[in-house]
Amino acid sequence: MIKANLPHGHAEHVHDQHCKPDASGIYVISPSGAVADPETLTRAGARLIALGFKVALDRGVLHQAQRFAGTDAQRLAGFARALKQKLPIVMASRGGYGIGRLLDGLDWQAIADSGKRFVGHSDFTAFSLALLAKTEAISYAGPMACFDFGGKKTESLTAEIFGECMRGELEILSFETQDADAVDGRGILWGGNLAMITSLLGTPYMPKIKGGILFVEDVGEHPYRVERMLNQLAQAGILAKQKALILGGFTEYRLAEHDRGYDLKAAIAYLRKSVKIPVITGLPFGHTLMKVTLPIGAKVGLATEKGLAHLVLDEHQH
Amino acid sequence: MIKANLPHGHAEHVHDQHCKPDASGIYVISPSGAVADPETLTRAGARLIALGFKVALDRGVLHQAQRFAGTDAQRLAGFARALKQKLPIVMASRGGYGIGRLLDGLDWQAIADSGKRFVGHSDFTAFSLALLAKTEAISYAGPMACFDFGGKKTESLTAEIFGECMRGELEILSFETQDADAVDGRGILWGGNLAMITSLLGTPYMPKIKGGILFVEDVGEHPYRVERMLNQLAQAGILAKQKALILGGFTEYRLAEHDRGYDLKAAIAYLRKSVKIPVITGLPFGHTLMKVTLPIGAKVGLATEKGLAHLVLDEHQH
Repeated sequence: MIKANLPHGHAEHVHDQHCKPDASGIYVISPSGAVADPETLTRAGARLIALGFKVALDRGVLHQAQRFAGTDAQRLAGFARALKQKLPIVMASRGGYGIGRLLDGLDWQAIADSGKRFVGHSDFTAFSLALLAKTEAISYAGPMACFDFGGKKTESLTAEIFGECMRGELEILSFETQDADAVDGRGILWGGNLAMITSLLGTPYMPKIKGGILFVEDVGEHPYRVERMLNQLAQAGILAKQKALILGGFTEYRLAEHDRGYDLKAAIAYLRKSVKIPVITGLPFGHTLMKVTLPIGAKVGLATEKGLAHLVLDEHQH
Repeated sequence: MIKANLPHGHAEHVHDQHCKPDASGIYVISPSGAVADPETLTRAGARLIALGFKVALDRGVLHQAQRFAGTDAQRLAGFARALKQKLPIVMASRGGYGIGRLLDGLDWQAIADSGKRFVGHSDFTAFSLALLAKTEAISYAGPMACFDFGGKKTESLTAEIFGECMRGELEILSFETQDADAVDGRGILWGGNLAMITSLLGTPYMPKIKGGILFVEDVGEHPYRVERMLNQLAQAGILAKQKALILGGFTEYRLAEHDRGYDLKAAIAYLRKSVKIPVITGLPFGHTLMKVTLPIGAKVGLATEKGLAHLVLDEHQH
């Protein structure tokens, strides 16, 4: 086991070589927005192969229908093919918008029974949380083919942690936090993109997690909207039921003159006053190249010490 | 009674001079965002006086705390003063963001018992719907001081309909609709800003209306986000319980190249396929100068005929 302080925004990962599920291959589907540039998928495939994975692209991966990666029926068919093929990991090509349209049409029990490990983030949050709500099956908040492996830049630590997580080697994720309340507990890890989480409120696709550890991130949302969404989770009684709230990256928003000093920090300070649970900032997860891979629906441990938070991820395997 | 076809986006209003509640005065509060330019309130006051109203500005109307019109406590105090003073109508100066923070702190029963007629839109939707959820009291989706009466341009029909509604003279609102499903029924009228409506989902502030007539509008939300919010209302089982969905203005969003033909029309077409209730477009209500005033929580009638929809508003007074 290794523990180390890493620069803010980076994660230290402790891995265990003993336990090795099949992580030999990745099947890429396009469940949300259309892939604008096929080159990103070519590059992603080559990079994932170089990382030691077999890679297969679903035949619908480049479909287009308006802004979507195919009609709803075409994207549902991509999920069905993903269950039938042999590679153990199913990765989304990209996010955007579109999974919300498919929730009523997916066969959740078949997805859970398949044993496939589904990975994605952003719009994909709706899939992971719906799967958790409907079946309690685990899926993964993590990289997507185009964004994380298909661009000009990639982040090697993202790939490394993803590989370790898929191989069941990842025991502890430690990250620097400037602003963590004291916590030492365990619970179901769940969360993802904040807008997608709140978009499930009131629907049968919202998991009912008690004593959980909720992580959230978002992109392009002004802090007042982040605050509004977190307030909604608080007023819905959900935050009070969690052991902790972990904040990932909140990026690509623009403050205005009339904010007059109101910013993300002010929103978080307000949240801390109104919510009684521990809040931990600094999780390297979000719409950023550096992102950890996290098992949504797994029981994990969480502890903080001075300037560091530790997510103990191997607990669901014992 | 008068009925007439008016240009799209305009409303014909039928009024009845017999029934006259006290509409003599308006008390203006700032429950949400700070008023950036005091001149807008001066102009609004003068215009409302010219329209025949007494006008009083709450002493907190120009407060500022970050982006808000005062701290939460200051804005709550504005509501408390509004209940104590004598003018019968309480109008929000403007929207923005901030009422969500006050929902746990407002005395809903005192607000309902006051008999005041509260008027506003946008962020104010959270107030109106929470009041309805907590007490079944009626409030009004309508103009706000700065936006509708304080700018360089005003819309005389907005003021006229607002005045008639406040005086209880408004019997029927008829508006042109290019795209209305057949409907002839009655139910509780409720709704407002779509983002604010969905921000209440899962919380105790979301009204539980069966057989209602739901109206929605929004500003600066891309059609995919409008679709996502309407899908959430559908997946939460709320749309299926309504007699009809009325769409107001959806303004100030920008389509992108990668939308590839997906637009508001496409989102509405998709909605119509997935939702079984009648959908009526063209309500002159939203972030536009021309807006009708609507009683949220009142029982109303709704009927469509070729190219026209009629909202029968006087039913709650008999």
